[in-house]
Amino acid sequence: MATGAAATLPDIPGTNLDGVFVLKNLRDGLNIKEYITSNKCRTAAIVGAGFIAMEMGEALKTLGLETRIVYRGELPVKKWDPAFSAVVLEELTNNGVTFMAQQSPVAVEKGSQARLSLVTDKEKIETDIIIFALGVRPDISLVREAGLVIGESGAIRVDSSQRTSREEIFAAGDCCESYHRVSKKWVHIPLGDIANKQGRVAGRNIGGHPTTFPGVVGAQSFKVFGLEVAMTGLDEKTAEKSGYSPAATIIWGNAVARSMGGGQRLGLKLIADKASGKLLGAQAVGQGGAVGRINTLSACLWSGMGLDEIGYMDLAYSPPFGGAWDMIHTAAQVLKKQL
Amino acid sequence: MATGAAATLPDIPGTNLDGVFVLKNLRDGLNIKEYITSNKCRTAAIVGAGFIAMEMGEALKTLGLETRIVYRGELPVKKWDPAFSAVVLEELTNNGVTFMAQQSPVAVEKGSQARLSLVTDKEKIETDIIIFALGVRPDISLVREAGLVIGESGAIRVDSSQRTSREEIFAAGDCCESYHRVSKKWVHIPLGDIANKQGRVAGRNIGGHPTTFPGVVGAQSFKVFGLEVAMTGLDEKTAEKSGYSPAATIIWGNAVARSMGGGQRLGLKLIADKASGKLLGAQAVGQGGAVGRINTLSACLWSGMGLDEIGYMDLAYSPPFGGAWDMIHTAAQVLKKQL
Repeated sequence: MATGAAATLPDIPGTNLDGVFVLKNLRDGLNIKEYITSNKCRTAAIVGAGFIAMEMGEALKTLGLETRIVYRGELPVKKWDPAFSAVVLEELTNNGVTFMAQQSPVAVEKGSQARLSLVTDKEKIETDIIIFALGVRPDISLVREAGLVIGESGAIRVDSSQRTSREEIFAAGDCCESYHRVSKKWVHIPLGDIANKQGRVAGRNIGGHPTTFPGVVGAQSFKVFGLEVAMTGLDEKTAEKSGYSPAATIIWGNAVARSMGGGQRLGLKLIADKASGKLLGAQAVGQGGAVGRINTLSACLWSGMGLDEIGYMDLAYSPPFGGAWDMIHTAAQVLKKQL
Repeated sequence: MATGAAATLPDIPGTNLDGVFVLKNLRDGLNIKEYITSNKCRTAAIVGAGFIAMEMGEALKTLGLETRIVYRGELPVKKWDPAFSAVVLEELTNNGVTFMAQQSPVAVEKGSQARLSLVTDKEKIETDIIIFALGVRPDISLVREAGLVIGESGAIRVDSSQRTSREEIFAAGDCCESYHRVSKKWVHIPLGDIANKQGRVAGRNIGGHPTTFPGVVGAQSFKVFGLEVAMTGLDEKTAEKSGYSPAATIIWGNAVARSMGGGQRLGLKLIADKASGKLLGAQAVGQGGAVGRINTLSACLWSGMGLDEIGYMDLAYSPPFGGAWDMIHTAAQVLKKQL
């Protein structure tokens, strides 16, 4: 079973009109590009503010379209701390993408000045193309027929060998769950790198080479214009739900040492467990150095490291890449004092 | 004791002439800059090919000097694999720095066309300024008087609290040893980040807050022009000396996914132990993404992870920052097959 996930459309009238798209696969992307060219689109509206919406925002703006992102919340990428979401918002605005907060679509209609009109609970937005980027749901239509057990997350339940509740059926990718090593729960994180690993594990097991998928820590990242945005592990809310007592800190610094002129502003948030002192999660946003640090902290999460160790861990210091005390060290030591 | 390390000068005539420098501290750097300006230097020779020599090469070239690096070996930065040193050499050459291999200085003399002449066993190099970048030795002159035990590395022996062989004397920084978590030996790695950590540990212990310096894994990096160069852990030779049976692999790929146009060539070398399958070291060179990956692998080394785990570890995938299988995963899986 590798049925993947399907992009969700809101249950509003008009989403079947020409010029309304979702983005799930390469074909969708090509269709969008072709539609823009052949209809000489000048304006675009993206509904949603997750990382696909951010990436589409950049792509459409770069193609020369006047681009608006329409979102029911106040800030984009709500999985990140509001302080980091604010930086993402700034990056959108600085690059000419309009963020239209706190409004929800209620209908799509034919437009008057443009090809379409996105009607929200606040206003009418005339636009040549509309992309709904509201996330995906595991595609389990086939699965129900096969009688497979579905997990709490709504995705197919598997074990560490990617075997479903039926011994002869394996599942991999966006349609199934993964074991989260920090929350110790089975979760649904539909990302390409996880799908690749699960596919290989399933294939090896089917082929008679017993292999275990060791789980995930929730590492993810995206780029929007000049900004790296990344996270790993749990945020305070999911940490609490998983039985931890989280504490968190955000520090702001530079991805390069001050002696090199600084200039690459970087925000780093760490979340740790008050009881054990263990790292639970991390988030970062900056013009550079965010993904590398989140990957380093993912390796720390993977092996269950505590703040004490992380605060003195040996990293490859050089002024163009950080301070003698890296922001990872500083954040770990600051948070340690708060526990 | 924080006597640091002293830059070494070769035992040849003429190193006391005006215009001959070593680079150890900020003062040296300022002196060099001032000398260049007030003497309107047009040509420079750097002796040595470690990372200080590389950084000086970039700095002097950027100041507009015709810059030559003179080295007794064939390739620069010999701590790295020759395949990576060759990339560094290419970067120097592409940026107009001349690398003069396989010659050793035998004297410094007053020059005829330029202010000085660096005489090597092969030729005479006319140059306005000469920088000897031949590494540093721990400064233990005071230490001998105090009767402290010196380790095999030539630096002051300390324990994990930074205490020397005399109970009332602590040492920190470039003058003392550090415990290497991979080789399990006490080593001398004179780097600023290690010095900072040891200084804090020594200070806390002296101040009555028992603190342990948990050691190093040998993480280090430098930048030369557009190139990131980084390493961590052991190479094959040091691994063998430490009782391991090392195997190694180098893979070449892209720091960004092919779907994003690739273009950021990255080389990654992993070294692992045949007996245990554990990671022993890593090296990387590329226009981007090298330091982040080496830091991630430093965290893996820190906690003693094996190739099996590293090959499936969860990293923050996004096409601008790597493939769905990151080069870390691929290298771990390739090397695992070789064990």
